[in-house]
Amino acid sequence: MPIEIDPFYAIAISRLAHRMRAEGRSVIHMEFGQPSTGAPAAAIKAAHEILDADGMGYWESPALKARIAAHYGGAYGVSVNPEQVILTCGASPAFVLALSCLFSPGAKVALARPGYVAYRNTLKALHLVPVELACGEAERFQITAEAVARLEPAPDGLIVASPANPTGTIIPPDELRALAEVCQRRGIALVSDEIYHGLSYTLPAESMLQHAPGALVVNSFSKYFSMAGWRLGWLVVPETLIDAARARMGNLFLTPPSLAQHAGLIAFDCRDELEGHIQTYARNRELLLGALPATGLRRIAPPDGAFYIYADVGHITNDSLSFCEDLLRDTGVAVAPGLDFDPVDGHGFIRFSFAVSTDLVEEAIRRIEPWLRAKAAIAVGARIE
Amino acid sequence: MPIEIDPFYAIAISRLAHRMRAEGRSVIHMEFGQPSTGAPAAAIKAAHEILDADGMGYWESPALKARIAAHYGGAYGVSVNPEQVILTCGASPAFVLALSCLFSPGAKVALARPGYVAYRNTLKALHLVPVELACGEAERFQITAEAVARLEPAPDGLIVASPANPTGTIIPPDELRALAEVCQRRGIALVSDEIYHGLSYTLPAESMLQHAPGALVVNSFSKYFSMAGWRLGWLVVPETLIDAARARMGNLFLTPPSLAQHAGLIAFDCRDELEGHIQTYARNRELLLGALPATGLRRIAPPDGAFYIYADVGHITNDSLSFCEDLLRDTGVAVAPGLDFDPVDGHGFIRFSFAVSTDLVEEAIRRIEPWLRAKAAIAVGARIE
Repeated sequence: MPIEIDPFYAIAISRLAHRMRAEGRSVIHMEFGQPSTGAPAAAIKAAHEILDADGMGYWESPALKARIAAHYGGAYGVSVNPEQVILTCGASPAFVLALSCLFSPGAKVALARPGYVAYRNTLKALHLVPVELACGEAERFQITAEAVARLEPAPDGLIVASPANPTGTIIPPDELRALAEVCQRRGIALVSDEIYHGLSYTLPAESMLQHAPGALVVNSFSKYFSMAGWRLGWLVVPETLIDAARARMGNLFLTPPSLAQHAGLIAFDCRDELEGHIQTYARNRELLLGALPATGLRRIAPPDGAFYIYADVGHITNDSLSFCEDLLRDTGVAVAPGLDFDPVDGHGFIRFSFAVSTDLVEEAIRRIEPWLRAKAAIAVGARIE
Repeated sequence: MPIEIDPFYAIAISRLAHRMRAEGRSVIHMEFGQPSTGAPAAAIKAAHEILDADGMGYWESPALKARIAAHYGGAYGVSVNPEQVILTCGASPAFVLALSCLFSPGAKVALARPGYVAYRNTLKALHLVPVELACGEAERFQITAEAVARLEPAPDGLIVASPANPTGTIIPPDELRALAEVCQRRGIALVSDEIYHGLSYTLPAESMLQHAPGALVVNSFSKYFSMAGWRLGWLVVPETLIDAARARMGNLFLTPPSLAQHAGLIAFDCRDELEGHIQTYARNRELLLGALPATGLRRIAPPDGAFYIYADVGHITNDSLSFCEDLLRDTGVAVAPGLDFDPVDGHGFIRFSFAVSTDLVEEAIRRIEPWLRAKAAIAVGARIE
């Protein structure tokens, strides 16, 4: 029998949300990390043209690889050769590819807890050993170089994510550099998930490649580019791993979707439309940060980037899955349970995704405010008794 | 360092072909296993509509899962529950998913040699152990139940492919049943690659599910449905593995492309157009089978299905990669070296893919006939000297 892999609990919430919707209930979807907007208009236009003109066989776009490589020069000032860019069917298989290039079964890979659920589960599915480092408010919910320096024995690898899911916290440049240094010194392979780059509200996120040229970097068109269902992502590998990564891509995945590659290339030139989405997210973030404290949600991870708010609901519950189900049933607002991101301390957290319209965020706040206040009052009452 | 995984040598041939094309040479692409036709017209029409109407977030189509499940009833008379169908980004990740659900590192998995290169390479990348069984003319290049019965110790798994790549041979119903029985008896997990189903010229291919309800079955929209670059496939798992497969799909791959799922559902209703492609392939196959013996290629694996001819060129060369390069440079006809499919005996074989227009097949025959005769004469001369 295969080893057991946890499900995404947010999927259970989403299924309930869809059932409620089918029953005529008004539901606000803040449970998944995906933009509610579609691809940029020009990318969709290009897709229409390709649909009529191209037979769409197995294909890797040389122009897209070159465009992505050039992006690293323009955005981060680092030089990337197009052959270092492996196009994938989204960030998830890019992550599988990275792990497969770097590690053999039994290898230990450190990562932050809380963190994206698929890191832990994919490591386990590939028979690697997740070494979860508890990261709380003191560390801004992020792994520190100091924590990595203390790990005995040194792990084989380290996964960093900045901006992170579920918290949105960004690792500042000095700390990124310190992480790169400790990994270099201790021989730890670095995988940097940069899928939320471009979505920053405080400091901009630097690429790990600015500090660790040998890092493997995962990214995708699903977040900033608003093309989640197109399934297009990429992995940047160092020159020494190009052959290993290409061989694995060809055998394990073959090629990414042709149409998405055509559209993705165009999306790189749709900055105005995409920056408009960021302005919406920035407004939504301000609204939530303004309103949540009054509902009793005062402990919130620093939401530097991405489109998430990870809020402590420990004053109300120690069962975030039931809490999310109740919140959804009572108010129609779907959010993700912290349990997905942190099997230990996530029982007292929930994650809001604010990549929806500002109207919906306002409506969600109206619905959850009295509900949260009432729940908090009941919890206080229960403790006083 | 990661373990070494072989590249696809056909990719090197294809790159040379594209360079020659860029230099103005006329090239006939018979090196890759993909239809030169596009998706059915109605599927493309549906895609246009979805592009304009749907934001395309992460999505799994319940209707497509139901349609695929129903297909097993209609085509094979076996009952499949839609939840047993896991939609994937093509057959390659479906195969990764199957192996990940069934096996742990070190597990031994038997397969035919010659066979699709990614079987062996994906097994190795997942730290499983390929047990290659040499299959020649006597076994119609397919694994037999007798060979599986003789294996000591019994392997943990067996991969069967019917119609097969590179040979096109189909395993007859009696032999499929015998394979199912020996696997059942010896506790061997079965993975059946049915990606070339629907492409049969002699006997129809039965599904392994007709004989082994617990088998994992891989299929895709890339061959019969002519939608290779859309990257959509599926895996059928037994009820007992639904949770394991769903958890792995969500973590390792997330979802398949949304647009492809919409279009794929429509493609199921485009039988007339798709059967037209099969008629073309049938004509192409007849042309090649008629012409090749006169060129000296007399030993050909029985091309029951798929769109391949696997031909013995051992009378001319023992280096199929150089042979393919020379053939391409001299005649502009690109074919795949047997080395991709058989690292031991593939040095003396080449694979033609005839999923191109009949005009191109006729032109390819005109070009290769004198070239092959000349090469054969030189080889005979060399042996006489």
